[in-house]
Amino acid sequence: MDGYIQNLKVKAFPIKTGKIVAILHEKDAKELGVMAGDRLELSNKKNGKKCVAVADITHHYIKEDEIGLFEEAIEGLGTKNGNLITAKATEPLKSLDFIKKKMMGEKLSHAEICEVVKDIAEERLSDIEATAFVSAVYMKGLDLDETISMAKALIADGNKIEFKKGIIVDKHSVGGTNGRASMIIVPIVASTGLLIPKTSSRSITSASGTADSMEVLANVSLPMEKIKSITEKVGGVIAWGGAVDLAPADDKIIKIEHPLSLDPEGQVIASVLAKKASVGSKFVVIDLPVGKYVKIKDKEIALRMAKKFVQVGKEIGMHVEAVITDGEEPSGLAFGPALEAKYALEVLEGKRFDNLAQKSCELAGILFEMVGKARPAKGYAMALEILESGRALKKMKEIIKAQGGKINSSDEIKFAPFKKELKSGTDGIIEEVNIKLVTKIARFAGAPANKSAGVMLHKLVGEKIKEGEELMTIYAENKEKLKVAEQFALKEIPFRFKRIILQTIK
Amino acid sequence: MDGYIQNLKVKAFPIKTGKIVAILHEKDAKELGVMAGDRLELSNKKNGKKCVAVADITHHYIKEDEIGLFEEAIEGLGTKNGNLITAKATEPLKSLDFIKKKMMGEKLSHAEICEVVKDIAEERLSDIEATAFVSAVYMKGLDLDETISMAKALIADGNKIEFKKGIIVDKHSVGGTNGRASMIIVPIVASTGLLIPKTSSRSITSASGTADSMEVLANVSLPMEKIKSITEKVGGVIAWGGAVDLAPADDKIIKIEHPLSLDPEGQVIASVLAKKASVGSKFVVIDLPVGKYVKIKDKEIALRMAKKFVQVGKEIGMHVEAVITDGEEPSGLAFGPALEAKYALEVLEGKRFDNLAQKSCELAGILFEMVGKARPAKGYAMALEILESGRALKKMKEIIKAQGGKINSSDEIKFAPFKKELKSGTDGIIEEVNIKLVTKIARFAGAPANKSAGVMLHKLVGEKIKEGEELMTIYAENKEKLKVAEQFALKEIPFRFKRIILQTIK
Repeated sequence: MDGYIQNLKVKAFPIKTGKIVAILHEKDAKELGVMAGDRLELSNKKNGKKCVAVADITHHYIKEDEIGLFEEAIEGLGTKNGNLITAKATEPLKSLDFIKKKMMGEKLSHAEICEVVKDIAEERLSDIEATAFVSAVYMKGLDLDETISMAKALIADGNKIEFKKGIIVDKHSVGGTNGRASMIIVPIVASTGLLIPKTSSRSITSASGTADSMEVLANVSLPMEKIKSITEKVGGVIAWGGAVDLAPADDKIIKIEHPLSLDPEGQVIASVLAKKASVGSKFVVIDLPVGKYVKIKDKEIALRMAKKFVQVGKEIGMHVEAVITDGEEPSGLAFGPALEAKYALEVLEGKRFDNLAQKSCELAGILFEMVGKARPAKGYAMALEILESGRALKKMKEIIKAQGGKINSSDEIKFAPFKKELKSGTDGIIEEVNIKLVTKIARFAGAPANKSAGVMLHKLVGEKIKEGEELMTIYAENKEKLKVAEQFALKEIPFRFKRIILQTIK
Repeated sequence: MDGYIQNLKVKAFPIKTGKIVAILHEKDAKELGVMAGDRLELSNKKNGKKCVAVADITHHYIKEDEIGLFEEAIEGLGTKNGNLITAKATEPLKSLDFIKKKMMGEKLSHAEICEVVKDIAEERLSDIEATAFVSAVYMKGLDLDETISMAKALIADGNKIEFKKGIIVDKHSVGGTNGRASMIIVPIVASTGLLIPKTSSRSITSASGTADSMEVLANVSLPMEKIKSITEKVGGVIAWGGAVDLAPADDKIIKIEHPLSLDPEGQVIASVLAKKASVGSKFVVIDLPVGKYVKIKDKEIALRMAKKFVQVGKEIGMHVEAVITDGEEPSGLAFGPALEAKYALEVLEGKRFDNLAQKSCELAGILFEMVGKARPAKGYAMALEILESGRALKKMKEIIKAQGGKINSSDEIKFAPFKKELKSGTDGIIEEVNIKLVTKIARFAGAPANKSAGVMLHKLVGEKIKEGEELMTIYAENKEKLKVAEQFALKEIPFRFKRIILQTIK
């Protein structure tokens, strides 16, 4: 726009920052007419290569007629330290108008959302600009049309798996906590010949994510082709989604959402379904747990999200059923990667059957009904039969082996060496378990970074307990962590006992 | 919170990024339980120094057990390349809760705003977090209480000038364009013994800022003490605000606002008044130009802002009068740093008197009435007398000299060597000058980076012109820029002639 400077000397910093940034001396910036945050077109005359960078301005370290570049720009221009390049001020990106439009509360068109998503995916937007977009989506929301556009834009921009044959199904839980239903559902479903290429996340605020627990049994950092070939071979896979670029724009948006725990509803729905679409899923069950201590606290919100999931799914050619589930109590008794992995295996081995096993069979059952494997209302029984017959366990062993794992039985999974049992000081009936507090205890004990650390509860809601009976066991890698976790548990007490007298008026 | 790692080896990158960032290998990040954007407490055992850094995560360049640090962290820890430090996950900042609260549309308390501003000023918030705050302020607005809190927080956090004696006055224009009224008002006001330590900005989107034009005459990058001592000596100064840390948080907020041209009303008001308070101003006149081609397009908005300026001023102990001015036509005929500087000097020399001179005397007159130097409605006449008597010119020469300048007369200011005169192709009366287009022509010609480039108009609104008479002259540093500016001017034509027939119906 305003001007250009030839022969700027490259000062190379050998590190990737994730953004294409060019650092200018303030005098050169003034000559170019750019401020920090404006865009420059950089070009290397020698090879004709060009790239667009966001300007940063300093009067330290970079002298006049120098330009500081990080690895991304160095690679893009095919240049190196000491070489000369040309910088030119460029017009602002079109996306910036659309971001501003969303900030003003106006609705974005499909083309506008696609443009923004593309610029995010390809790192053309600075953190400031991308955050302004994510903040606007959080504060102004995405309506149904925009959510559909967002899902389509995310799909268009990521890698995709295409299966030649077979029926591809999937499941996802929104903001669940403990218990690895996926590790039970995937083998049940895969036992029937359906394909279920499940990609999962690692824990962010919980004691374990499905990817963390599965990693106790096998390798979860699988490239795209591996996810495809394992699914084709054994029917299912449980991989870490972060290892594959299913939706690069979405990964960047999630990184922005993280520090402030933003989770704009429309964005969450688009994000989940786009990732399912990228692995080719056609039938998807969405689990929306509602409870005091989980992400969705209100049934009305769950209902609204459920409807949106179904509608957006339809628009992107996916049959979605969303279920609202009871999230008031923990799913099974385990908290922590190894504890939850062992627990899920024990369910498959027939050693345990509780609310986690129940939920897994119900969700698998819905998938069976959706694809016509089971008649209406008969899916649960079919799933239960597969679980109880041992076929699901056999399938799980095949999946573990295909993912390079060596575990054959739940007995082989060991917990962290330092442990502490906490006992009840009273007789009573357990009325409530505070999932958030149990999660915190497990995290103080070292989970999820220490895979074998965590908490095992011994009682669930509704169960009777006697004075001196065990309430929970904490496992930790060392004495210090055990101590911190124990002290927190004794102070906060995550159990509430039933009381018949609710209030006394004097 | 979760854990710590001792003996991470520092990999130093010798550059400042403006943020305290620590780059971790993904395995170390997992062990610490941190994600990109989370905070780490870094400590250097050798000297006991600590600092908090925002984590970034990579699997390139930084190996396991290494930690990448930029200059800010290196300095803060007193460490160097190859040395060992300890990293520990820390609790999130309290500010993040307040930012989220504002995003949800809730009102922030005084203490909450102060906490956020402090964290911005001291670089504790990442770009993502600070942008979320600025976006929330833009989308949800600041009410009067919040604006007052913001102004107080910005003042508390910046440097301050305190004058031992004298009455300190000031003026500010919100979103004006061409014409350097400040260069006329400051010497008029300073001639009477009032102190006017004026800090100004450089051009962002206009053809010149007051700091750019003043720089043609003298040095404007003055440290705090110089601003104080010059004001004490000659009564006035015209300095570049960017050279002093009057409100460091505000400078950072403005940097975030820039890429998307965000200008949340409350933030603008707090920002302007905080900077005035920081130089000790007690009486301030705020100029709010309203017009089709300036920032404020609607008189209602100007009125609302005016009232808020007055109220916020009162709360911070400042007497503010806000005036709504006619921004429909250019202020004087010049566009570009040198052109506008020369024009203002010519007004002081008595060679010109037009709407720019008129406005300058009106605004100076209000200040005289505010401090009691002039009786009500007599301020304008007093200012005009000072201008016409030559006392303002004499004062301006003192100011230029005190700021290290050598210019003695407007004749010494030269324009860029390549010029082009554009002539009218018709007889007529000028009805409108499109200030935005004239600004663009001046910028294509090289302003404000090329100080002597720009545009001189020859006619203002309401004036008659004959076919072949000059409409404007473009000045540029070289032929190429002249050509681009000329072509744009011929294509877009920034003048509209009066037409009596407004519409023909056939």
